[in-house]
Amino acid sequence: MRLFIGEIFPDRAELRADEIHHIIKVLRMNDNEEIYVTDGKGKWVGGKLRLKGKKAEVEILEIFPQEPLSERILHIAIAPTKSLERFEFFLEKSVELGVSEITPLISVNSERKNLNLEKMQKQLENACKQSLRVLFPRLNPLTPLKDFMEKNAENQLFVAHCYQEYEKISLKKVFGNQKNITILIGPEGDFSKHELELLLSQGATGVDLGKNRLRTETAGIFTVAGFYYSHL
Amino acid sequence: MRLFIGEIFPDRAELRADEIHHIIKVLRMNDNEEIYVTDGKGKWVGGKLRLKGKKAEVEILEIFPQEPLSERILHIAIAPTKSLERFEFFLEKSVELGVSEITPLISVNSERKNLNLEKMQKQLENACKQSLRVLFPRLNPLTPLKDFMEKNAENQLFVAHCYQEYEKISLKKVFGNQKNITILIGPEGDFSKHELELLLSQGATGVDLGKNRLRTETAGIFTVAGFYYSHL
Repeated sequence: MRLFIGEIFPDRAELRADEIHHIIKVLRMNDNEEIYVTDGKGKWVGGKLRLKGKKAEVEILEIFPQEPLSERILHIAIAPTKSLERFEFFLEKSVELGVSEITPLISVNSERKNLNLEKMQKQLENACKQSLRVLFPRLNPLTPLKDFMEKNAENQLFVAHCYQEYEKISLKKVFGNQKNITILIGPEGDFSKHELELLLSQGATGVDLGKNRLRTETAGIFTVAGFYYSHL
Repeated sequence: MRLFIGEIFPDRAELRADEIHHIIKVLRMNDNEEIYVTDGKGKWVGGKLRLKGKKAEVEILEIFPQEPLSERILHIAIAPTKSLERFEFFLEKSVELGVSEITPLISVNSERKNLNLEKMQKQLENACKQSLRVLFPRLNPLTPLKDFMEKNAENQLFVAHCYQEYEKISLKKVFGNQKNITILIGPEGDFSKHELELLLSQGATGVDLGKNRLRTETAGIFTVAGFYYSHL
């Protein structure tokens, strides 16, 4: 099943320009081929590709039920890794495993303080298409930790960290008790002690990811995997 | 904490030749630096680096308790992905998250039928060192599915697959009931129907990894993550 992105109308779907390019120039799909289209907001349809020169439309043959908003929300705020490849891998895996929202964070120890958000958004969409997610997760711009805390002052925050001297609860407990969860994951070298104390003083709860020493992107993937696992 | 591989004697540790090269030529570590050594079989010590020309030894200052064999064993038999990078990522993540044994499988639909085992072993060791695993998981050679089944004829096998028409149990149930678990994960395009029927006819149990369509390496990482999560 091949899923593409576009706008869905009652009778037809209009593919996004870059998707048309991909369909014609890269995949070299033929007129009349079976194709699926989503708007990324939970709507999706199946139909036939209608090619007219450089234009491509979809004749709708099947309308699927709107994907409902999940009752369980997982927002991961994570400092991007020095290696972009590792962060991209986190992005792809967490989308496949059902993350709801991602905020790339800037922390004192961040080794990466820039991101090509457009490229990331494209990778997120590709992962959605591949895994048939028709309700796309939200990707926010790179945000300094303090700004993130201000924006989320109303939310209960959870922070995964490696410091032994502060109380932590198990990830399992977090997923068992909460439905709308925001978890922060620090950079290589973790959040600074000052950052952690700031978070804790403003009501954040420390989270323990078990005894193994996990890389930043592994901590992120594991957190989303645990979320997915906990509602198998 | 920097962990290296070597042989451990009562009074000293001898680093492996490639580790000495890495310490001297790449990391340019100094005489007297703090260093940790494991034999990969559960033994590990801390001490001081003693450099003598092209030789390097470790004077032991601290002996840690032998890491006990885990009571819970997870063996993943997985068909390597077409993209080597994706398979390497699975390898690294599953080592970090505590896999016990990996067998790369050849199945009818396998897109990759060769692997540089030596390179993989090196990557496995690097992941162990990074995540401070002193009991290295075992990496087996690429094995055709039928040979794997013969070798494991005595073991209860679990097979993760995407076919809807065969009974499956949840991964959660597998981890809840068993301590010594072998899970098979098919290639892009899954096991063939014939392969699956062969497995089921010989007593394997189908496993469900939830409703998302996961890539091969994601299915592998998720399975190990679920194992790790289930005993947080």
